[in-house]
Amino acid sequence: MVGVLTTTTREVVLCSEVMPSSPTLVSSNRSFGGEQQVFRHDSSVLGCSMNFGVYLPPQAASGPCPVVYWLSGLTCTEQNFITKAGAQAHAARLGLILVAPDTSPRGEGVPDDDAFDLGCGAGFYLNATQEPWARQYRMYDYVVSELPGLIEAHFPAAERRSILGHSMGGHGALVIALRNPGRYRAVSAVAPITAPSQVPWGQKAFRAYLGEDQGAWAEFDASQLVRVAKERLPLLVDVGDKDQFLERELKPEIFRRACEEVGHPLTLRMQPGYDHSYYTIATFIGDHLEHHAAALSK
Amino acid sequence: MVGVLTTTTREVVLCSEVMPSSPTLVSSNRSFGGEQQVFRHDSSVLGCSMNFGVYLPPQAASGPCPVVYWLSGLTCTEQNFITKAGAQAHAARLGLILVAPDTSPRGEGVPDDDAFDLGCGAGFYLNATQEPWARQYRMYDYVVSELPGLIEAHFPAAERRSILGHSMGGHGALVIALRNPGRYRAVSAVAPITAPSQVPWGQKAFRAYLGEDQGAWAEFDASQLVRVAKERLPLLVDVGDKDQFLERELKPEIFRRACEEVGHPLTLRMQPGYDHSYYTIATFIGDHLEHHAAALSK
Repeated sequence: MVGVLTTTTREVVLCSEVMPSSPTLVSSNRSFGGEQQVFRHDSSVLGCSMNFGVYLPPQAASGPCPVVYWLSGLTCTEQNFITKAGAQAHAARLGLILVAPDTSPRGEGVPDDDAFDLGCGAGFYLNATQEPWARQYRMYDYVVSELPGLIEAHFPAAERRSILGHSMGGHGALVIALRNPGRYRAVSAVAPITAPSQVPWGQKAFRAYLGEDQGAWAEFDASQLVRVAKERLPLLVDVGDKDQFLERELKPEIFRRACEEVGHPLTLRMQPGYDHSYYTIATFIGDHLEHHAAALSK
Repeated sequence: MVGVLTTTTREVVLCSEVMPSSPTLVSSNRSFGGEQQVFRHDSSVLGCSMNFGVYLPPQAASGPCPVVYWLSGLTCTEQNFITKAGAQAHAARLGLILVAPDTSPRGEGVPDDDAFDLGCGAGFYLNATQEPWARQYRMYDYVVSELPGLIEAHFPAAERRSILGHSMGGHGALVIALRNPGRYRAVSAVAPITAPSQVPWGQKAFRAYLGEDQGAWAEFDASQLVRVAKERLPLLVDVGDKDQFLERELKPEIFRRACEEVGHPLTLRMQPGYDHSYYTIATFIGDHLEHHAAALSK
């Protein structure tokens, strides 16, 4: 097992010689008594090298801890969350491992687009079916399967998971939890895109990655998935009422209506004065991690 | 007064028309019930436009709050502290205004150097006497006088101040507090350069900005100033024992010895496993702000 608090770069490198898919330590910084680390590994699902952040709380030194997956928004890498959200303070207090993947495949040969909302940095946590994206833009499979497999094999991780995210990553968290009953103990989102089939960012991405078939879009649209959800996992969603993308891209009222119509438990908090920035995430990440910790401790 | 929680960009612009030195709002983000703002103003001391960050806690909406000045390290702007330190959570809890200036004059016509440790981003919180720096590299006067004057005129700021910083900014905080008895209620530092006259970063900067006269260097060297300090302000200093600059640049043992020899109160905490990064700042900023709040509430 790599990544425990005493791991050194040398140990990880040795380990990766015998086990090709093992992650390699990129950086490690002590933080709130634990370690904020970044690893790099060869993703077989995405066909490229990927970075991910792992925060190991102090409690991970003495035994397995539950794992909270954080999915970031458009343009982000693993760095945004680990440097700006202030989540480590809460994870240390609550004994949670935080895992923060990148937002798309990246690197030489990976298809991309000049726009910020398509291609690298804009994976939308789906499995693409259209060219040139289909082979590598498979962030859904990466986040649901490959990354947890890696985390649970190489880190002091309990098999108790939860998931949350921001904006495009909030969309990803809701979609992934709704499609995988029993796999996550909790799910929440800050400023999520909740009805991607009905907003410009989502329509552009879905058309490019999934084609014109609206049936395929529904498989990655939280407002449609919640109508057929097999599990009533309580949803916590925070959105700032001064979010610059509220009306055009986030549309939480569509999601609220869908939840109400099927009786799915949703706590939607419109936060007065807050915008789409990391200042909003930092303000509410503590509430979210407490919500997750309560479900993960059961 | 600009900068109260209800201030809009328009109000600030109108205000600056009648009062040329008034700050102009650059950005404002709600954070922990308060506002993280960035302003820009024309500094007469530095002869250029300067950005500074101001965090107004919720308490500032109902009355003046004490002000904590944060000085950043080499290469930083006002952004590093406001995005990475997680200080707003504590300031909101404690009712503190946080002011984070840039680390040097900047912009067209401002003298600079290709090196990261001289010129822009490396003002060292002193008043330069040598060319080409002497006219604009006056961060000491800027932080001690011009900036507090601006803050106390335009924001809901009490005339109770404290100061802290990181690395080069820790040096600045210690020097400024030691040279200005009665002006600051508290001072502290994370990973400060404590004996600049004896380490490469300090020697390079002092030689360029102050010339070869070691007497001039002593005026900006905390380990020398503490020997003649007229006020016994208790000093709190945190340094990581894995700080990559510990032995070459920070040398807290020189400062500890100086404090011991003159009986100046110093709490120096060597923090096991911590490095020079913002992860260290984020971990201990809460302790520091509590230390400041206790002194500022008296």
